[in-house]
Amino acid sequence: MRLVVIGGVAAGLSAAAQARRLDSNLEIEVLEQGSDISYSACGLSYFIGGEVRRIDDLVVNTAEKFERERDVRVRTRARVTAISHPRREVSLENGERVRYDKLVIATGTSVNRQSIRGADLPHVFPLQTLDDARRLSEFLKQRRPRTGAIIGAGYIGLEAAEALRANGLRVGVYEASSTALHREDEFLTEWVRKQLERFRIRVEFRRPVDDIAALESEVVVLAAGMRPNVELAAAAGIEVGRTGAIRVSDQMETNLSGVYAAGDCAEPIHRVTGRPAWIPLGTTANKMGRVAGANAAGKRERFPGIVGTSIVRVCGIGVGTTGLPAAQAKREGFSPVVARIENADRAAYFRGRPTTVELVADRQSGRLLGGLVIGEEGVAGRTNVIAAALTSGMTVEEFEQLDLAYAPPYAPVWDPVLIAAQQLLKLLR
Amino acid sequence: MRLVVIGGVAAGLSAAAQARRLDSNLEIEVLEQGSDISYSACGLSYFIGGEVRRIDDLVVNTAEKFERERDVRVRTRARVTAISHPRREVSLENGERVRYDKLVIATGTSVNRQSIRGADLPHVFPLQTLDDARRLSEFLKQRRPRTGAIIGAGYIGLEAAEALRANGLRVGVYEASSTALHREDEFLTEWVRKQLERFRIRVEFRRPVDDIAALESEVVVLAAGMRPNVELAAAAGIEVGRTGAIRVSDQMETNLSGVYAAGDCAEPIHRVTGRPAWIPLGTTANKMGRVAGANAAGKRERFPGIVGTSIVRVCGIGVGTTGLPAAQAKREGFSPVVARIENADRAAYFRGRPTTVELVADRQSGRLLGGLVIGEEGVAGRTNVIAAALTSGMTVEEFEQLDLAYAPPYAPVWDPVLIAAQQLLKLLR
Repeated sequence: MRLVVIGGVAAGLSAAAQARRLDSNLEIEVLEQGSDISYSACGLSYFIGGEVRRIDDLVVNTAEKFERERDVRVRTRARVTAISHPRREVSLENGERVRYDKLVIATGTSVNRQSIRGADLPHVFPLQTLDDARRLSEFLKQRRPRTGAIIGAGYIGLEAAEALRANGLRVGVYEASSTALHREDEFLTEWVRKQLERFRIRVEFRRPVDDIAALESEVVVLAAGMRPNVELAAAAGIEVGRTGAIRVSDQMETNLSGVYAAGDCAEPIHRVTGRPAWIPLGTTANKMGRVAGANAAGKRERFPGIVGTSIVRVCGIGVGTTGLPAAQAKREGFSPVVARIENADRAAYFRGRPTTVELVADRQSGRLLGGLVIGEEGVAGRTNVIAAALTSGMTVEEFEQLDLAYAPPYAPVWDPVLIAAQQLLKLLR
Repeated sequence: MRLVVIGGVAAGLSAAAQARRLDSNLEIEVLEQGSDISYSACGLSYFIGGEVRRIDDLVVNTAEKFERERDVRVRTRARVTAISHPRREVSLENGERVRYDKLVIATGTSVNRQSIRGADLPHVFPLQTLDDARRLSEFLKQRRPRTGAIIGAGYIGLEAAEALRANGLRVGVYEASSTALHREDEFLTEWVRKQLERFRIRVEFRRPVDDIAALESEVVVLAAGMRPNVELAAAAGIEVGRTGAIRVSDQMETNLSGVYAAGDCAEPIHRVTGRPAWIPLGTTANKMGRVAGANAAGKRERFPGIVGTSIVRVCGIGVGTTGLPAAQAKREGFSPVVARIENADRAAYFRGRPTTVELVADRQSGRLLGGLVIGEEGVAGRTNVIAAALTSGMTVEEFEQLDLAYAPPYAPVWDPVLIAAQQLLKLLR
């Protein structure tokens, strides 16, 4: 049996590694179009900003190491141009054909440059791959630009803005939509605007960019227009879902038997809505990859879906989100009720600092639908508690009774998430 | 209607405040035997250790402020000596009788000094009340002792040891049982021993103390032999449960109608075992108090129970526990399986530091039973995620698929709790 994996970063390598763990006889080949495999794409901005010193620190595995340790063939600069499922083979750019019995598609995302004039100019950089980061870093060193523009106020955009600011540039962020972090949340968007301004980063919403020249910036980071790479799959007759990403079963299988998709190119189920969602993140990519790899190796594993949990640092402050913001909950057919509180993140006498918690619930069922946490400490943990509650479908009443850890150096006696739940209960009753 | 509350710290004041919120006509009187109400008992060690500068910072409410703001009568130095339920009245030490329609008993715990010779000597201090802390602090200033002994390796004992060490004393901790932190966990106990020794605090387990003189220490903190104060209740015909604390319904009602008990003197249900448990903690006391107060005010609220979550700082490192350790799980009739991992608490290239996660599950059902987290950062959050999972009865399989927050400054792409779950799954399969 031969397993071919298209894509050698998060989902692709997770699939290959898991398939190998479960079946030592499987012949496995990973085809990666870039020159690196298995790196932390989420760390690229921190390399640009100087918090990660060496770009090699972001490399989890080299092709050689992965090949040796996992007994998996890894080919870099191997771009797949077509999949022929009837013949069970993929074609490479160089004309070569690679046969498969099982196929995992982990083609990730790319930035759409078509719609922006000048997007291919030499001072314009996406920030998706190690090569992108190497080129941008080199540009900053050589050219010492004084002004920078970021297109897009998603995770990568905000992290890149902070990174360029750390390099001493004057920075502006331009976001086509009306909200930050791809979340329909006016409060969060306003918070992001203020937080960036505190660090003298200008940000404009509802500001689509169609010409790089209009930005009048010496360096531009392209962090908008991300879309799943589905062309290869679609051309082979693989179905694309309503989100624009590849439709998969809970076993990560596409409509073609034996062909799986995982990671940023696929759409898992959102466990709060019960519908497919496209929220491309490294954690989800790894999890989907493992399930795809296991099933490609003959197991029957399920990926139950996501609740859309993420965290991002915005100029030193953590912002965690999970589930649905109210506006999205409403569009999904819920009757959202929102409570938002600001409280100390630990005992006030123990240098407690303010943290914000927002919880969203459904008026009819009392079920928790989503949450937002902003603060200096404990943001990931508080977001994750909400995520765990969303996963098990807790009501606000159940959530409010959670037995959470307390000691003065770590939390106040009523944790901020519980205070938010108490407020929300009052609104629901 | 008259509500009388015996005890004016965590549970008692929570009950009084909640009853007032729900019924503005209720006549409410709080009887507190000490001279202070509403203080953070959990902060006493940090005052002794110098991290909290002023002891008044630990006072949440004064009697005057609480009386004024809540319209509740608060009497300090008012010790109740008897409850006569047939007459619906309590007797005070001065002979006065106070009538009630509803009664909340929140008498807390005390340290048993009877069994230790010399426990009343002037250099021996419990550390339960503001007065205890004031006296100990004064003693340290005036007498400048060079050697200190702590009796008991529970939360208070370990925090007190660190506090005396911070005052420059040579410190020894003497624990009668074989384990630290009241948890039957050899690994944790060994970790505590090593951690204290790194800070040059000696610790001896299986070392009961029956004579203070044997310790040859210039100051002694009595942090063992805590027991629920149930004598008053028992003498009035109120049932005491198997843990030695007051038996209550899930509405916090005792066997006497209209008489409630809450806080450290009562035994709530442990949601993992389904049986009553006595785990005296400030968070639980506050929650039980609210429910007791609501029901005393005529509502019908439930306290669903605890999962035994707590966190303590041991010489700079956080230790979070929730649910059952393996040894206890076995005694409770489960077939415990344990996985313990050590991993970075965030991306390795982002100054990740090692954190330990132990998970316990039941072999038959695959259900998660408990967890332990040790580390520098994110300990409360990780413990709380496990606590949320215990609350909803998650299996390890479900837990392993949780969608947790990831960004390099906060967590690794596979959170340590998920890596522990993966290891545990392998052992369960």
